[in-house]
Amino acid sequence: MRLRNKKEAKEIINNSDYLIKNEVENKGKWNKVFNNNNPIYIEIGCGKGDFIIENAKRYPNINFIGIEMYDTVLMYAINKLKDEKLNNLKFIRMDARLIEDVFDKEIDLIFLNFSDPWPKNRCAKRRLTHERFLKRYDNIFKNNKTIFFKTDNTSLFEFSIESLSVYGYTLKNVSLDLHNSNYEENIMTEYERKFSEKGNKINRLEAYKD
Amino acid sequence: MRLRNKKEAKEIINNSDYLIKNEVENKGKWNKVFNNNNPIYIEIGCGKGDFIIENAKRYPNINFIGIEMYDTVLMYAINKLKDEKLNNLKFIRMDARLIEDVFDKEIDLIFLNFSDPWPKNRCAKRRLTHERFLKRYDNIFKNNKTIFFKTDNTSLFEFSIESLSVYGYTLKNVSLDLHNSNYEENIMTEYERKFSEKGNKINRLEAYKD
Repeated sequence: MRLRNKKEAKEIINNSDYLIKNEVENKGKWNKVFNNNNPIYIEIGCGKGDFIIENAKRYPNINFIGIEMYDTVLMYAINKLKDEKLNNLKFIRMDARLIEDVFDKEIDLIFLNFSDPWPKNRCAKRRLTHERFLKRYDNIFKNNKTIFFKTDNTSLFEFSIESLSVYGYTLKNVSLDLHNSNYEENIMTEYERKFSEKGNKINRLEAYKD
Repeated sequence: MRLRNKKEAKEIINNSDYLIKNEVENKGKWNKVFNNNNPIYIEIGCGKGDFIIENAKRYPNINFIGIEMYDTVLMYAINKLKDEKLNNLKFIRMDARLIEDVFDKEIDLIFLNFSDPWPKNRCAKRRLTHERFLKRYDNIFKNNKTIFFKTDNTSLFEFSIESLSVYGYTLKNVSLDLHNSNYEENIMTEYERKFSEKGNKINRLEAYKD
């Protein structure tokens, strides 16, 4: 479908059961939203939703939450679910900087996919792998901290390796060319499909911290 | 000069003051070899010596030791020094697996440049960033452990990020395209010059551990 205007997009997503509207009220109680105690994985910046939707289908015993700031983008994700009934998937429309208002030590894994690289140094603090965000994530992770990160942006990947490592994360399963690696369970994002077709190499890593 | 046979190469390097022949006897006493207490940096696999020779010229207050297994390769390095008198540079002909026999808590920094990638999994233990080598390095570092690593081999770089990180090293100044980065003090190896001219991207990182 074609991009609609902001008002129309807002209406569409607000009418969907997939969108959690009172996200702040669920802080510390997300297991009740899903009505089970399964692990909760979130994607910060889920875009049009392909990645998180496919994850929810593939792993029914994990709960997934897609977080996206823009109505008009989130509308695409919601629309893909018109004829689907996935009990383990929700979306939140919010700014990632407010994530501690929404979760309290209840997240098992964070996906960061093709996050905005914020190339200028003075904007480094806005990168989702900047120390400022890593501190926020500390408060939403349940026990062990796990971040799965992929990007085609070389500078953001370099920055993120240092930032995560300096913060105390251990890096594993690093790939500088994901689509030519032996990582078989990859689920592509819309962006990833488009830019890998153009020949961009995809970088990926897993970061772990106690 | 053209590659000579092994016997001739052995003669040339054995006649040079740059080659330390009784390396095992200097264990724990390398400051006496250099006759000062300056830091000691070593390059494991120094090849034809361009990198370590240029370092020795550029940083006279640091002592450098190039380590190379092959006479015929080391001969090139030695020959480049025919008309030079550098008091802060020595070479050792040895297998890196024996490094603990030669040094005892006296090294400040290890350079690993374009190390053999040993691509087959069953040979992983031979990679100079494998845990087996990192354990050996623990015994030769003086205080803090610092490794500067560069390679054009993507698989070796991926492997090394994980291996160093899991072993407890913090990774900094990561570059996936060194020659297009803002790292200005780079000194190229022979291999690096050749393969970057072919368009290979050079990866580099610095690894630190207390």
